[in-house]
Amino acid sequence: MRPRVEPTNLTRVDFTELTPDVLPFLGQAAYIQLEFFENLSRAVATSPNLAAKEGLSASAGVALRKHHGLIEEIREHDAEPEDVMAPFAPALDVYRTAIAGADWWELLLGTYVSAGMLDDYFIRLADGLPSPVRGRVVRLLGEVGASPVLVRELSEGIATVPGLADRLALWGRRIVGDTLLVARSAIREGTGTGPEVEPMFTELIAAHTRRMDGLGLTA
Amino acid sequence: MRPRVEPTNLTRVDFTELTPDVLPFLGQAAYIQLEFFENLSRAVATSPNLAAKEGLSASAGVALRKHHGLIEEIREHDAEPEDVMAPFAPALDVYRTAIAGADWWELLLGTYVSAGMLDDYFIRLADGLPSPVRGRVVRLLGEVGASPVLVRELSEGIATVPGLADRLALWGRRIVGDTLLVARSAIREGTGTGPEVEPMFTELIAAHTRRMDGLGLTA
Repeated sequence: MRPRVEPTNLTRVDFTELTPDVLPFLGQAAYIQLEFFENLSRAVATSPNLAAKEGLSASAGVALRKHHGLIEEIREHDAEPEDVMAPFAPALDVYRTAIAGADWWELLLGTYVSAGMLDDYFIRLADGLPSPVRGRVVRLLGEVGASPVLVRELSEGIATVPGLADRLALWGRRIVGDTLLVARSAIREGTGTGPEVEPMFTELIAAHTRRMDGLGLTA
Repeated sequence: MRPRVEPTNLTRVDFTELTPDVLPFLGQAAYIQLEFFENLSRAVATSPNLAAKEGLSASAGVALRKHHGLIEEIREHDAEPEDVMAPFAPALDVYRTAIAGADWWELLLGTYVSAGMLDDYFIRLADGLPSPVRGRVVRLLGEVGASPVLVRELSEGIATVPGLADRLALWGRRIVGDTLLVARSAIREGTGTGPEVEPMFTELIAAHTRRMDGLGLTA
């Protein structure tokens, strides 16, 4: 029943002009992975079925590895992870609570939308980091995370729970704005307001639409 | 200020008579590690300071590795982890909620008391498993988990937060009974009511008392 969407060959926008300095990048990326870990752990703890726990907990483990890998990178730069992450914590804590939603299904979709947009985005931003940290961070963030298991659980729910598709479609629309604000807060200072960020937003929204479409939800 | 307790050379009780069959052992041990993971993740998410998150999340990762390692063992025995864990889930879910307490400090102490008693206990029970699963499980469960980070955070809290020591001493006493019931539910069927389990209880309680004492709390 799910509409099949062909991958679109968009010209990929070059994000590297927007890449911030190494430490702010690592601090924000590390804290975002911690947020994913926290939401995925919550999805494990509140899972209505035991079967979903294995995949979700494995995904939480992947987010945790990325978080600790990025923390190691911060230490490699002779900085304290706590100090480097602290400036991003208040806004990201609010964001995490916002995308957690009202129940397990909204938590899963919130995490899927958020991780879908931000994981890919941070990998693209990482392209603008100096070598050799660039390669290490791209490999670290490139590990497949929660998406497959979230798509599986969400698809099953959408197919079997009456009314869930409409509710989740609405929910997906509500959190995309907050996620774009997080994306914008991650770019190099001084570049956040001009037209140079337009293509980045356009591309993130297009990818989001394809993901929602893949679940059979109207973005 | 913490009283130093010398390690006591108790004659170790032989638990292997109490070891259940491999699959129930693995199912319950795997689900207990999942519970530790869930409580430690919750401790990460509700941590009042960023500094504690790193150690707590690393500990959550250790519990998760143990959980997935035990799940792998269940698969090695041609069984479905979900089916093998399911009989233990309802009681352990209630137990997890019980030890989570009313705030972050009680959650930390609940996890410390619980993991302290049960981790060591399951390693001891594992001694009665057949080879080669015995060696693999003992190694798996032997990885150092949350205790060091929990002791560090709890000691700091007890030293600096007025009234916390008294409250936590009381809390420790309240959860030890529930933890002993979990321990008793793990032994071979038919051995749970006789005097043969007395030495096991005595040893678990003695180790619990030493741990509370190490925190400066009266058990």
